[in-house]
Amino acid sequence: MIEITFEPAGRKLKTDPGHILEIARDAGVPIRSDGGGKGVCGKCKVEIVDAKAEFSKITEAERKHLSEEELKSGYRLACQTKILSGRAKILIPPESRLESRKIADLAVEREIKLNPPVRKVHAIISEPSLHDIRPDFERLEDVFGEFQIPLSILSELPSLLREANWDITAVFWKDTLISIEKGDTSNRGYGLAVDIGSSKIICHLVDLLSGETVARGYTENPQVAYGEDVVSRITYASKNKDHRKKLQEIVVTAINSVISNLCEEAGIGEEEIYEAVVVGNSVMHHLFFGINPKFIGVLPFVPAVRRGINYRAKEVGLKINPEGFVSSLPLIAGFVGADAVANIAVTGIHKSQEIAMLIDIGTNTEIVLGNKSRLLACSAPSGPAFEGAHISHGMKAVSGAIEKVRIVDDEVIYETVGNVKSKGICGTGMIDLVAELYRNGIISKNGKFIGNTARISDEEIRKYIVAYAEETEFEKPITVSEKDVKEFLMAKGAIKAGWTILAEKLGITVEKIQRIFLVGSFGREINIKNAKAIGLLPNIPDEKITFVGDTAVGGAKMALKSLGVRKEMEDVVKRIEYIELSAVKNFYSVFARSIPI
Amino acid sequence: MIEITFEPAGRKLKTDPGHILEIARDAGVPIRSDGGGKGVCGKCKVEIVDAKAEFSKITEAERKHLSEEELKSGYRLACQTKILSGRAKILIPPESRLESRKIADLAVEREIKLNPPVRKVHAIISEPSLHDIRPDFERLEDVFGEFQIPLSILSELPSLLREANWDITAVFWKDTLISIEKGDTSNRGYGLAVDIGSSKIICHLVDLLSGETVARGYTENPQVAYGEDVVSRITYASKNKDHRKKLQEIVVTAINSVISNLCEEAGIGEEEIYEAVVVGNSVMHHLFFGINPKFIGVLPFVPAVRRGINYRAKEVGLKINPEGFVSSLPLIAGFVGADAVANIAVTGIHKSQEIAMLIDIGTNTEIVLGNKSRLLACSAPSGPAFEGAHISHGMKAVSGAIEKVRIVDDEVIYETVGNVKSKGICGTGMIDLVAELYRNGIISKNGKFIGNTARISDEEIRKYIVAYAEETEFEKPITVSEKDVKEFLMAKGAIKAGWTILAEKLGITVEKIQRIFLVGSFGREINIKNAKAIGLLPNIPDEKITFVGDTAVGGAKMALKSLGVRKEMEDVVKRIEYIELSAVKNFYSVFARSIPI
Repeated sequence: MIEITFEPAGRKLKTDPGHILEIARDAGVPIRSDGGGKGVCGKCKVEIVDAKAEFSKITEAERKHLSEEELKSGYRLACQTKILSGRAKILIPPESRLESRKIADLAVEREIKLNPPVRKVHAIISEPSLHDIRPDFERLEDVFGEFQIPLSILSELPSLLREANWDITAVFWKDTLISIEKGDTSNRGYGLAVDIGSSKIICHLVDLLSGETVARGYTENPQVAYGEDVVSRITYASKNKDHRKKLQEIVVTAINSVISNLCEEAGIGEEEIYEAVVVGNSVMHHLFFGINPKFIGVLPFVPAVRRGINYRAKEVGLKINPEGFVSSLPLIAGFVGADAVANIAVTGIHKSQEIAMLIDIGTNTEIVLGNKSRLLACSAPSGPAFEGAHISHGMKAVSGAIEKVRIVDDEVIYETVGNVKSKGICGTGMIDLVAELYRNGIISKNGKFIGNTARISDEEIRKYIVAYAEETEFEKPITVSEKDVKEFLMAKGAIKAGWTILAEKLGITVEKIQRIFLVGSFGREINIKNAKAIGLLPNIPDEKITFVGDTAVGGAKMALKSLGVRKEMEDVVKRIEYIELSAVKNFYSVFARSIPI
Repeated sequence: MIEITFEPAGRKLKTDPGHILEIARDAGVPIRSDGGGKGVCGKCKVEIVDAKAEFSKITEAERKHLSEEELKSGYRLACQTKILSGRAKILIPPESRLESRKIADLAVEREIKLNPPVRKVHAIISEPSLHDIRPDFERLEDVFGEFQIPLSILSELPSLLREANWDITAVFWKDTLISIEKGDTSNRGYGLAVDIGSSKIICHLVDLLSGETVARGYTENPQVAYGEDVVSRITYASKNKDHRKKLQEIVVTAINSVISNLCEEAGIGEEEIYEAVVVGNSVMHHLFFGINPKFIGVLPFVPAVRRGINYRAKEVGLKINPEGFVSSLPLIAGFVGADAVANIAVTGIHKSQEIAMLIDIGTNTEIVLGNKSRLLACSAPSGPAFEGAHISHGMKAVSGAIEKVRIVDDEVIYETVGNVKSKGICGTGMIDLVAELYRNGIISKNGKFIGNTARISDEEIRKYIVAYAEETEFEKPITVSEKDVKEFLMAKGAIKAGWTILAEKLGITVEKIQRIFLVGSFGREINIKNAKAIGLLPNIPDEKITFVGDTAVGGAKMALKSLGVRKEMEDVVKRIEYIELSAVKNFYSVFARSIPI
């Protein structure tokens, strides 16, 4: 047995030999890793600070990502290094930790008429007598009409009715019985809206009688430890059933602990939550329900199911009323998920006269374009550059990330998340930086370094210094290379190609787009002028571009409150035209044209 | 820890202190016990043959049921005696063992048109491509129309379809999906009919494509160890949820082991059984599904549910296809169960022109009377006398039971089950005996000993010697007392009162009954002339009385094969008039009149 301690978490455990990355995961001390544990990203750097242990040999990948000096001082890549015996203390440096992202707490939703599938009916049931010996269940049917009763409720029905003195409240989901409660509880009832993002999970607890949101909660998606992006999670989950089960269990457990907090905050019991409506991208959706996501990751990227699904909470393991329902909004395609559908619900573009565009920037950028008469959607393979991956000093929008940049007289003026010392640069920072570099003549349309400035280093690989070593948290300069800029322009190009092709298919020029909704917490921080300047967004007037924040959970809430909204969304999904970009003939030429600024 | 060995089973185990009856139960060496462990019946006699152990003190009940001599030689009642420490060898004498009853292997069923709810559809599913990216589930809907898919199947659907190369067979129960199988399996499919009796369980495996019965199996109902009759099982199950769960588990486990044997015999997989149709009395029905039976045992004897119920096999724990269905026929009332409905299905009295009577003699004797225009039913509280309880030398119709009796010139000519030495007398033997005693002037109409014969002993409690000590297995005489005869006549009286009242309600005299169906294995052994002579059956011509054997499993098979039969039975249950005898004003006077021969 090996004894290992992770710092600064202070987590100590005994374990079998294995990769440090996996041991840390299993210990609940996740380490950053974008490359799926293959030594690709170099971001799972750890420091072995105190060890009487034997480790596996330093690999090629480690020599590539770690300097000679780092290797000497005990740095290793957690995904490459196996601890074989002995005991060790491992320090996870700040840049390798998974930290909370900035989170928009705005959840937009449209005003809607309350018409949830959950309804509660209070009733006094007639007692049996020697002259009316009909069974208990038929006495319920006298009041509620014909319905199906779960075995778990039927099993306890006889004692429950008598303990309640035949005064009960029945809870239905559509026509299906969820619960029978003693006495009159018809003035209480709750629902849960859940947005399962790849990295964050948002839960809102809703009073189904008033429609009010009574508590809000949030947690990291623990699946992050098994892969940063959906593709690496598909890879992990596809290996075997246990892996898939594991990913389901941890996300359900994470949501359950939020539920427990929300219930405490609101002073209600978990069994009073009768339905949870879940949204998320198609992979999050499949993994949450335990559905094999493998073929979402393989051409032609087909999900198992598209329509909204409804299963009993006990089947999914969600800790609400066990016979309550866990429902999903429908999906559009493998890479345009139920979150996009929720966004449509909130923005109402499926009912709009104006031609509107919804855009949710991420590793896959979901774009929906159209209006009430026609809707198109696609997923642009923008890659993880906007989330900091594949960019030398890229990082997510967490504390210390440079998120706003201006260049004035060769001076870089920037702001960081949390106003702390800079640690790297996030997606919104890159948008500003690239726009400013171009504006100041430092880079060409294609991202080539053409300017003359002392900020460009003389090394073999030329780098532009965004922040000098003395300004930064780690006392190392934060730079961007030509390669970084090009990587970023490629990502931008994919997105631009996406909306260009959608507009083409719709038969309009992009300037005809009358409204753009920027959704997701990422969108909220974007400098619109810069985004338009580099061609990330179509060039339409600023006031036509609206930030809508975390709409997905808002859409889930709308569905929770209204069967009408669900019906609308099922109809939208049926009529929406999904364009698989890789199947579009001229995609690659449009893409190539879309890369330059 | 205590070490205990049960002989002749040779079962040795270590256990905590406890009652011998319970330890034996848990060890799978059940001991006969009719009184629910309360020292009432005195039939759980055991012999402590070798012990270095401490036992609880001899109770009042033991002094009542055991002779001084027996107590001296180490006999105790298993329900009364606790082993407190040490180790002991316990001999379970033959009369205290639970043994196989005689079983009629005839299962009558009517010829019906095959129309089971289970159907299999073979289909080639269209493969997705870049130009048809619809999800897997919708591809199934192309072929099968809209349907619900269980989460367990949806979860595995993507890999299954691709492994099957899109060539599959879907199995439906009505419109609900049970299974998706690789390739064309539409030429195979099975169902199971189960009759859960209080003491025996009969299972028939049916080929749903041909309608043929392909294997038959049988097992004891292990719940017997927790009470011989339904009332003591209700008592046990009502104590707490664990008890109820235990009774469900053991009966399901027993059926599962029969299923496993049937599958092996037929060379099929358990997952190829797509439905089980279960019948049984209302208590067996409730306990099998895990439904609280408590209030069936309490005035006004109301079951939880009457209509047929259908739940997934995995919910019940039955080892057929986990998403397959376990269905029940409907019940009529707390003491007229789904077995009676099955009997109606088989005999077809609900469609008959003739006025017919169905009678199933047992602790509760279910009687159905009527024809296609009107049907009445009742349960006569005949008590356990017909099953050997409350009769000094009474026993079930197992090996050694006297089952046929004639008295010729003061000589008792009898036959035993299995033609072995006699051990006691069973219900059919009692019918013959009482009829013959009356015929020979030995007893009066009221069961008083009036004859003059050497067979009547001179003890304080007068007894008629049926078999002398030297003729019997245990070398003790088999006798009946006046009290036994009266007990038996009371039981008969309850049954006669039942059909008398039903006939009265129907507005006919009992001679107008045109057909009697004697159902159950008990009925098959009855001497009709004697049964009529003592007034157990109405006095109609012999040829109008038909034995139909174990019809209940036959009725379950009919339901298994035909949705039409199920519909018919639901309709019958709705229109049948159940007469609760205890609510009938003149029941007690009719009962009193019905006791004498």
